[in-house]
Amino acid sequence: MKHFTRRSFSSLATKGILGSALLGNLPMANAFTLSDKNKKLGIALVGLGSYSTYQLAPSLQETEHCYLAGIVTGTKEKESIWKEKYNIPKQSIYNYDNFDAIVKNDTIDIVYVALPNSMHADFCIRAAKAGKHVICEKPMAVSVAECDAIINACNENNVKLSVGYRMQSDPYTKEVKKFVKEKTFGDVLFVSSDAGYISKGNPDQWRLNKKLSGGGALMNMGVYAIQTSIYGTGQNPISVSAQEFSTRPDYFKDTDETITAQFKFENGAVAHMMTSHNANGNRLKVHCSDGWFQLDPAHSYGPISGITSNGNILEFPHKRQQALQMDDFSKHILTGSKNIAPGEMGKRDMIIVEAIYKSISEGGKEQKLSLGNLGVVS
Amino acid sequence: MKHFTRRSFSSLATKGILGSALLGNLPMANAFTLSDKNKKLGIALVGLGSYSTYQLAPSLQETEHCYLAGIVTGTKEKESIWKEKYNIPKQSIYNYDNFDAIVKNDTIDIVYVALPNSMHADFCIRAAKAGKHVICEKPMAVSVAECDAIINACNENNVKLSVGYRMQSDPYTKEVKKFVKEKTFGDVLFVSSDAGYISKGNPDQWRLNKKLSGGGALMNMGVYAIQTSIYGTGQNPISVSAQEFSTRPDYFKDTDETITAQFKFENGAVAHMMTSHNANGNRLKVHCSDGWFQLDPAHSYGPISGITSNGNILEFPHKRQQALQMDDFSKHILTGSKNIAPGEMGKRDMIIVEAIYKSISEGGKEQKLSLGNLGVVS
Repeated sequence: MKHFTRRSFSSLATKGILGSALLGNLPMANAFTLSDKNKKLGIALVGLGSYSTYQLAPSLQETEHCYLAGIVTGTKEKESIWKEKYNIPKQSIYNYDNFDAIVKNDTIDIVYVALPNSMHADFCIRAAKAGKHVICEKPMAVSVAECDAIINACNENNVKLSVGYRMQSDPYTKEVKKFVKEKTFGDVLFVSSDAGYISKGNPDQWRLNKKLSGGGALMNMGVYAIQTSIYGTGQNPISVSAQEFSTRPDYFKDTDETITAQFKFENGAVAHMMTSHNANGNRLKVHCSDGWFQLDPAHSYGPISGITSNGNILEFPHKRQQALQMDDFSKHILTGSKNIAPGEMGKRDMIIVEAIYKSISEGGKEQKLSLGNLGVVS
Repeated sequence: MKHFTRRSFSSLATKGILGSALLGNLPMANAFTLSDKNKKLGIALVGLGSYSTYQLAPSLQETEHCYLAGIVTGTKEKESIWKEKYNIPKQSIYNYDNFDAIVKNDTIDIVYVALPNSMHADFCIRAAKAGKHVICEKPMAVSVAECDAIINACNENNVKLSVGYRMQSDPYTKEVKKFVKEKTFGDVLFVSSDAGYISKGNPDQWRLNKKLSGGGALMNMGVYAIQTSIYGTGQNPISVSAQEFSTRPDYFKDTDETITAQFKFENGAVAHMMTSHNANGNRLKVHCSDGWFQLDPAHSYGPISGITSNGNILEFPHKRQQALQMDDFSKHILTGSKNIAPGEMGKRDMIIVEAIYKSISEGGKEQKLSLGNLGVVS
């Protein structure tokens, strides 16, 4: 439930979407009719790199419950380009220095932080302090401690938080979660996940700079394989072991190139994953007691492709995952519907990332995990 | 090249297949015309379990260069059944005690040992001492030392030796080896292999009895994943690490249930594999610098199914792999053609198996391997 602060109250009042919710303990869901275009939430994108440019901004042209309301960029020349292209009001354009003034901007409800990983915590916390709901791009941060700081800041400021796990909103993922939950193919026994691509030609990119990225393939693509391992089994792992492979140290000077990891689960399932900046991989295969299902590709921008052991081809209408994701989060804010990619999920994955790095540093030693149901959204 | 002993000489003379090879240093290939039905080599199957019953004997009805000439069984009642079904002469039926008398049987050229793993070495060595060529079912033995003993016995007795790696004769495997060798999709970067099935209902089978099997999933199905990892990269691994998972210790009392392993290769490729008696898996996926190819299923009795990143479906006429395998070995004996599954290949895989078990016993520690090109057949 959203708690009303002075700021959120006036923000909602401005949009004319205050209703009976204020009259008692009714959930916010009762206050809104989602079909009302006026109730679209305003999103400000922080960081106008390729992800914002080619994924988030185009997706925001397709969203039903939110729209591109502002930008935050460190590159002066991008301001006018975006202003013109997306008709963004001058007063909703910020740079990294004056960003905190966003607190006064009632047209911005959500701040989407799409900066290099090491900058996530700073801007998510500043956004929360400005009373804005937060979407933090994956990986959530560069350490568990930073994840905690983001979660705490959002809690303290009564704003909602989600992680940019677009796959959680994809219908193929939802189908996988349904198969697992309903035991459509029986008990999950073994999950195999790959997530990688071949990086070349640009050794100076931020993703290969540990100070900015916090890590290489694991922090970037590995998080997808961790996610698929978990929604492929429906549980958090109880232990992990991992190995690192380095074959192009001249290019990957600072960050991990290829990592394999193995997971144990309480329900007896076993998973192994591969992530790489030096090899392609885009697959989830789940072997169950009575059959199997597979996504390949499993986590690209789509359309995803799926098949099951009974010969069924999975087919769902394709929509930009980021549009679905931002709409899901907006609905969560507006109606109190489930937050399907909460901060706890991002923190959990970062706990696993840190355990993987620790296992590697200890020669592949198994690391016990005590995650309980942290971040598991059924 | 086959060296002529008194026994092999008289055996060939009996069949009327001696030719110019004896006149000088000409390879045996010159001595034979393979289309001549009379030159079929006689095979004796040792151990009439399900593999001999449902795979080897039916396959020997389809072979061109060998035929089912004898049986060796420890089960009296099987003698008459097989004698009648396959028209086997009484004098070519042996039990485990009188097996060594096979030395006098000129109708038997090859002995195929399809017994539980722990009995391979004994019977392969006895077959070699009887002057018979040897096919040893996979895994070759329960230790590297036993593999060496088999190889030595075959060398000392001038007989040929191959391991029952039927997949080496399958056209899909040959296509994979061609892709790798010709770099059809560029350099191999990452290989993922799974080989497993769900064992249930019979905890007392020999495969789950370590004294007879030498190990569980790894010794049985794992060898396929080791093989695909190697022909998927075209090289032997230079190191391996591994993990074991036990979720049904009540059923798998004595042998490994699920094992994952990771390989490094000299050429920079990385591979990971899974083998299990508690989960299905039957796949080889090879990611290269310019594309990928996949077999799924990759090592069942067929037909195998393959696809490549350019959308090509691999399609080869299906023939029983065991028939192809026994014909390949017979041609090797008859013509000096390449032995595509030599004893050294079986030994190499057992070195890897032992390294995997060692890694597991050392908490997943990487084990260096110094295999050179041992057992690599291009």
